[in-house]
Amino acid sequence: MKIVSYSHQGKPGVGVVTGDKGIVALAKASPALPNDLRRILEVDPSLNAVRAAVKGKSADLSLDDVTFDPLIREPHATWALALNYKLHIEETGLPTSPIYPQIFMRMPISQVGHKEPLWAPDLKIAEAFDYEGELAVVIGKPGRFIKREEAFDHVAGYSCYNEGSVREYQGHNRQFGLGKNFERSGSFGPWLMTPDEFGNPADHTLVTRLNGIERQRAKISGLLHDVPRLIEYLSEGYTLQPGDVIVTGSPGALPLNPGEKPEKPIGKVIVAGQLHMRAGDTCEVEIDGLGTLSNPIVTDPTPIRR
Amino acid sequence: MKIVSYSHQGKPGVGVVTGDKGIVALAKASPALPNDLRRILEVDPSLNAVRAAVKGKSADLSLDDVTFDPLIREPHATWALALNYKLHIEETGLPTSPIYPQIFMRMPISQVGHKEPLWAPDLKIAEAFDYEGELAVVIGKPGRFIKREEAFDHVAGYSCYNEGSVREYQGHNRQFGLGKNFERSGSFGPWLMTPDEFGNPADHTLVTRLNGIERQRAKISGLLHDVPRLIEYLSEGYTLQPGDVIVTGSPGALPLNPGEKPEKPIGKVIVAGQLHMRAGDTCEVEIDGLGTLSNPIVTDPTPIRR
Repeated sequence: MKIVSYSHQGKPGVGVVTGDKGIVALAKASPALPNDLRRILEVDPSLNAVRAAVKGKSADLSLDDVTFDPLIREPHATWALALNYKLHIEETGLPTSPIYPQIFMRMPISQVGHKEPLWAPDLKIAEAFDYEGELAVVIGKPGRFIKREEAFDHVAGYSCYNEGSVREYQGHNRQFGLGKNFERSGSFGPWLMTPDEFGNPADHTLVTRLNGIERQRAKISGLLHDVPRLIEYLSEGYTLQPGDVIVTGSPGALPLNPGEKPEKPIGKVIVAGQLHMRAGDTCEVEIDGLGTLSNPIVTDPTPIRR
Repeated sequence: MKIVSYSHQGKPGVGVVTGDKGIVALAKASPALPNDLRRILEVDPSLNAVRAAVKGKSADLSLDDVTFDPLIREPHATWALALNYKLHIEETGLPTSPIYPQIFMRMPISQVGHKEPLWAPDLKIAEAFDYEGELAVVIGKPGRFIKREEAFDHVAGYSCYNEGSVREYQGHNRQFGLGKNFERSGSFGPWLMTPDEFGNPADHTLVTRLNGIERQRAKISGLLHDVPRLIEYLSEGYTLQPGDVIVTGSPGALPLNPGEKPEKPIGKVIVAGQLHMRAGDTCEVEIDGLGTLSNPIVTDPTPIRR
């Protein structure tokens, strides 16, 4: 089952994708359910009620007719992983613990949905606005002290994430803070795919393309701390909440193609194959079997005052 | 004006403190307003409607009869500052930028209200559960690219914060992540004091007491990055939202008193005067003219499974 968060004629909705492009609107199929995926997961963490409600129903809308919202519009927590693929650790030359995940947070205003424009900072503010293609895990059933072998019972589904980062700000000090949280700098979608269809994350491959050219390609089995470990670790500290999001980290960069020039170095961490996202570009994050999250890039339209 | 977020007979409410202990309930004084301070700030960022609604009203409840909720129950973003007082920078021996604030985030489940128990991790999970008394700033009017000289126009008010930290987890890797986000590890309250009554944060003093004994005392004028600078900096990256919280950083530790023993060293950062919070303790954060945030400490009651 694939679930989308969307807006249609200015109203938020949640729906189940049917066929190629159809959406069964949950507001119609099951009016008692909330119109927000986080709130649905709070009352239906297994999504069984959603599944039952849409059974046999035909599409109310087309994916072409809606605006995609971030899959979870306002999560209680979005955890993101730094340095969680071996190649990315090597290429940055940065230290990280092999035992404990390296974790920071993102806030809701930093994310947009599928097809919505990402905002590149005005070049007077920052130049190094970088893609990071990642697998996102969405929590369903809450839990504390979750063991590795039970971790998948707490996953409602998976999605793609572009964990867009503003490197100058990320490097301003030792905690990443604002550099991982610029307004509309990241994207989350296009939909949630439930575990019965997705299977084991480790069996999938993640690809990031900028203007159609592959820039990242990695087997998700290459995660340093895998999905069960991340759930186990976080649940040592708090009761994971329905709709909480774990963004599992970005793989390394592919080498540039012959004739392509690397970006001008900014800051101390130089990754030869990493390019910036610029106004006019399109960035895609694809996970095989799940789908492709695609976003055009525009310059942040907010007038600069300083 | 002082505003509290509370629960009474199981229902959430927001009220204005009157006299010593009275609460004018906004649900009664102005039924059209939402029953959540963040939502109120979204429609009334200056709090002028709240002020008008309670004028001349007498108390509906007493502070003794309610449960205090975290002042903002679920902020869109809670930004917290690392190493933002000179003495704290010196005592830790850690580097930080004098130009750019060092910022990380906290999630809602990590905080409780005034008088509610803080959870110390079971000692089998972690031993170094530490207080950090801090001034919290609550945003009212949203804004982007806010200049220093306009920053105070965007402040709805101030409160106390105990930015409780689990040092073992904070030190697990380079980003603080989970160590600053254990369930019910921090507290936020007792109330919001509006700027017309509070005045300039720099004119106030912050004191932290553990079991009645002073452990931190600092003039808020000692902030490395002051309140206008923090607002200026964050607003370079995104449009500050009503109810967003900036927790401005913890001052250094006072020396231990004669005969007191320092804690057993845990991790690389040793601060001689810092004690841990243990079950049975009470921790208070006081800001002169604003009030005192007080919390008993209990052991996290969640059964450990691993």
